[in-house]
Amino acid sequence: MTNTQVSLLQIDNYGPWTTTPEPRREVDLQTLQSRLYADVSQLVGNTEGYAFFGRFDNMVAITNGLDRAAHARIQDSLSNRYPVTASLSLAARASPVEALGVASRGLQAAGSAQDSTRRKILRGDPLPEADRTDDDLQIAHFDVNDATGKYTDELNEFDTFIHIEQGYAELMRYLREAHDSLAFFVGGDNVIAVCSAMDRAAYRDTIDHVREAVDVDLKVGVGRARTAQKAGMTAKHELEQCRDDGSRVELGWE
Amino acid sequence: MTNTQVSLLQIDNYGPWTTTPEPRREVDLQTLQSRLYADVSQLVGNTEGYAFFGRFDNMVAITNGLDRAAHARIQDSLSNRYPVTASLSLAARASPVEALGVASRGLQAAGSAQDSTRRKILRGDPLPEADRTDDDLQIAHFDVNDATGKYTDELNEFDTFIHIEQGYAELMRYLREAHDSLAFFVGGDNVIAVCSAMDRAAYRDTIDHVREAVDVDLKVGVGRARTAQKAGMTAKHELEQCRDDGSRVELGWE
Amino acid sequence: MTNTQVSLLQIDNYGPWTTTPEPRREVDLQTLQSRLYADVSQLVGNTEGYAFFGRFDNMVAITNGLDRAAHARIQDSLSNRYPVTASLSLAARASPVEALGVASRGLQAAGSAQDSTRRKILRGDPLPEADRTDDDLQIAHFDVNDATGKYTDELNEFDTFIHIEQGYAELMRYLREAHDSLAFFVGGDNVIAVCSAMDRAAYRDTIDHVREAVDVDLKVGVGRARTAQKAGMTAKHELEQCRDDGSRVELGWE
Amino acid sequence: MTNTQVSLLQIDNYGPWTTTPEPRREVDLQTLQSRLYADVSQLVGNTEGYAFFGRFDNMVAITNGLDRAAHARIQDSLSNRYPVTASLSLAARASPVEALGVASRGLQAAGSAQDSTRRKILRGDPLPEADRTDDDLQIAHFDVNDATGKYTDELNEFDTFIHIEQGYAELMRYLREAHDSLAFFVGGDNVIAVCSAMDRAAYRDTIDHVREAVDVDLKVGVGRARTAQKAGMTAKHELEQCRDDGSRVELGWE
Repeated sequence: MTNTQVSLLQIDNYGPWTTTPEPRREVDLQTLQSRLYADVSQLVGNTEGYAFFGRFDNMVAITNGLDRAAHARIQDSLSNRYPVTASLSLAARASPVEALGVASRGLQAAGSAQDSTRRKILRGDPLPEADRTDDDLQIAHFDVNDATGKYTDELNEFDTFIHIEQGYAELMRYLREAHDSLAFFVGGDNVIAVCSAMDRAAYRDTIDHVREAVDVDLKVGVGRARTAQKAGMTAKHELEQCRDDGSRVELGWE
Repeated sequence: MTNTQVSLLQIDNYGPWTTTPEPRREVDLQTLQSRLYADVSQLVGNTEGYAFFGRFDNMVAITNGLDRAAHARIQDSLSNRYPVTASLSLAARASPVEALGVASRGLQAAGSAQDSTRRKILRGDPLPEADRTDDDLQIAHFDVNDATGKYTDELNEFDTFIHIEQGYAELMRYLREAHDSLAFFVGGDNVIAVCSAMDRAAYRDTIDHVREAVDVDLKVGVGRARTAQKAGMTAKHELEQCRDDGSRVELGWE
Repeated sequence: MTNTQVSLLQIDNYGPWTTTPEPRREVDLQTLQSRLYADVSQLVGNTEGYAFFGRFDNMVAITNGLDRAAHARIQDSLSNRYPVTASLSLAARASPVEALGVASRGLQAAGSAQDSTRRKILRGDPLPEADRTDDDLQIAHFDVNDATGKYTDELNEFDTFIHIEQGYAELMRYLREAHDSLAFFVGGDNVIAVCSAMDRAAYRDTIDHVREAVDVDLKVGVGRARTAQKAGMTAKHELEQCRDDGSRVELGWE
Repeated sequence: MTNTQVSLLQIDNYGPWTTTPEPRREVDLQTLQSRLYADVSQLVGNTEGYAFFGRFDNMVAITNGLDRAAHARIQDSLSNRYPVTASLSLAARASPVEALGVASRGLQAAGSAQDSTRRKILRGDPLPEADRTDDDLQIAHFDVNDATGKYTDELNEFDTFIHIEQGYAELMRYLREAHDSLAFFVGGDNVIAVCSAMDRAAYRDTIDHVREAVDVDLKVGVGRARTAQKAGMTAKHELEQCRDDGSRVELGWE
């Protein structure tokens, strides 16, 4: 059984801010968003968590090992460096989807994302230190088979992007509906998923589904550990194993 | 008629670099990618261009007004600050899709994205200064009607994300196939498209298509100008007009 | 004769902000300051200017070629990305010291640096485009002879730092008093000075003075150009010439 | 008695890199240096350490609480994100100056700072966890009395800078020679010093010395704690106390 601690970070009142008093330059918004994400990634990563950019104004992080004080520090650090503030809500559950559901409701109960008086909310409880185990997290790292040879070096970059995007969109929907797992595009042809306790058959089923639905061939390496970073690093090594062996699914614990 | 100058930026040999000599920490890769994008955004933005993060290892920028020397400076600036280098290819055409096609082939002809000896390629020709006009670029700024009220404040953030993502995936595919235009997700519930000379009917058709296909309601503001930034800023103001009036399509030139 | 356009950038009400409502974490302040400087450096550098970090809350930039609109864009770009705003004042004079004096008075006349209502001031006039010439700027790049061999590889890093610092402090004071020039430490053992129309004898005199006063041996390369970047790049090449030849002063125009 | 763990970070072979194959643009070097420092500041700060920019190519950090593995992670994180690598050497001693001396010799023994084959050295031993106490570190935060009123709002910014710089230069030299302490300029009119077990009389003596030597009036707040951040935060609060009371020296433990 997995035990995934999920944190939802939401920039407070961001939509209105971007157009008040009049629309801000897109180049500055893009810079702000991507740097804010890079900082969240570093702040969460320093304690072995993973942060995903998501929609940029709403980010999801896997934060096993970060307590409320660590979350408050991240929140302060952002408001000390950016013209916007962020609210945070966390929850730990066996199902990653359920954990994010609880975290989402925590923020929603505190007010709308576009309520100008709702700022720097911090809600939810971390996984108690005593309950943590060495296989709380299961991280899967997917990529597209021969994406460079079949797409990047052959197609218009936009058509490559459409293929990758289709594969990702189908993967994220299927993992969420069939396997209670959260998948995030992380650049190139890579997707990282925070999974429930899926077994080899479940990964095969997922890869089969994506190939049949949108004709994109995936492979996956999977790791389990106490923290996102350890599980994710195992997943990367298993994915290298796929590359070496031509296999489609490699699990770190088998 | 539009005349769109498109630049494709590709990080050289990036896939192999991320796993050599062994997989690098994901947190560092995410930080590297998002900061590199932020810098490209600034460098392109300083001359009124727009850069989109795309797959992060391949980025697309709209660069009317940037000559080859400006592209070379961006390339040098990145290699002076990052552990990776980037290749650049540019082309200007009436159709944004065709411009990106030419730019893609320029890089592909120079070698594979994973060829370790192909570095800092610079290919292609900018739009001659004498040919530039005040409506070379047509930029459309889309967002989802009441995304905060219907999704962010109601659903699990991942389910919101799936809705937004579905809307975006359908929009990008349809604009590319039916209207020769390139659409990019830019965060939140926003998509910016670099368009061919689409008229009001074409935008209505696009919005109708997305609603019917995936049940996501969009609105759009559109601008035309000599540079991406000016066209994009008009588009933002027109989108504000949609918000005020409840209209679905606002064009800056009507 | 030189014609130096100097811009003074001052973070508005920064001191009070750093301690309100209580002292902010030093690590965040250091990150904020150094990134804000990096951004100013990029924004000014994109139009071939030079920015110096100075005291970080007050920075000096050499901005020949940047008009008021460019200054306003920098100001907006910063306020779009940081929790603080900045005021800017510019002036062009034959003497760099006098130009900075005029720019300083421009801000002082608008209110105190710690007046919470004085925000985003923009004052002063750029050098008219018609008056610009190809030798408006004279930039000198100094370094310490064999700093690595004599200091870095031999001394406690702090004692090395004290030596470099003493050399810099004496150089900055002497150039300001004897030669109307502004010198800035730029890292390592390097100092860049924005000079009045100093000749070879003036540089020799300066180097002699520093050696006699604090026993630090300097050499210098000097360039002249229309922009800070071109003059500075010539100065770097001339300094390389000093290294190759063992000379102490190399001027780009002789 | 204090027990200060000092880490020296040195960019490997940086001088030659900046001019090979020819001098790199100053704007890129300044951006690289200041961002690299910001990242070091964050990475060290996440475990409650303090990093000072020093000469930028050589930085000093106070790292009580960071073990060798944490240092190796910082090293890897930098080489994953920058075109340069860094060597690190650490040591803990009662005297901050002696600790930095040991750390400096650790790097010097491994080769020259400009030896192109000496890369990513990691030397030295952290303070054993068992030996750590709640007053290992003594941090002093100095500022200049009424710097804004007397200098910033009255003088040419460069003359203000010269005054602040003179005060800092004298303070750093005197603290090092008379009190075995390391002082660093941190922006504005602020200096942070990592001190030996100085008492009230020692701080008064220092302030008196600086006023007599260079006519700059200082005040200081001092804190003691297990980590740099805690000691430094106490120092900031004590300095606020000076501002409220008009006192010149406030100690957190009295």
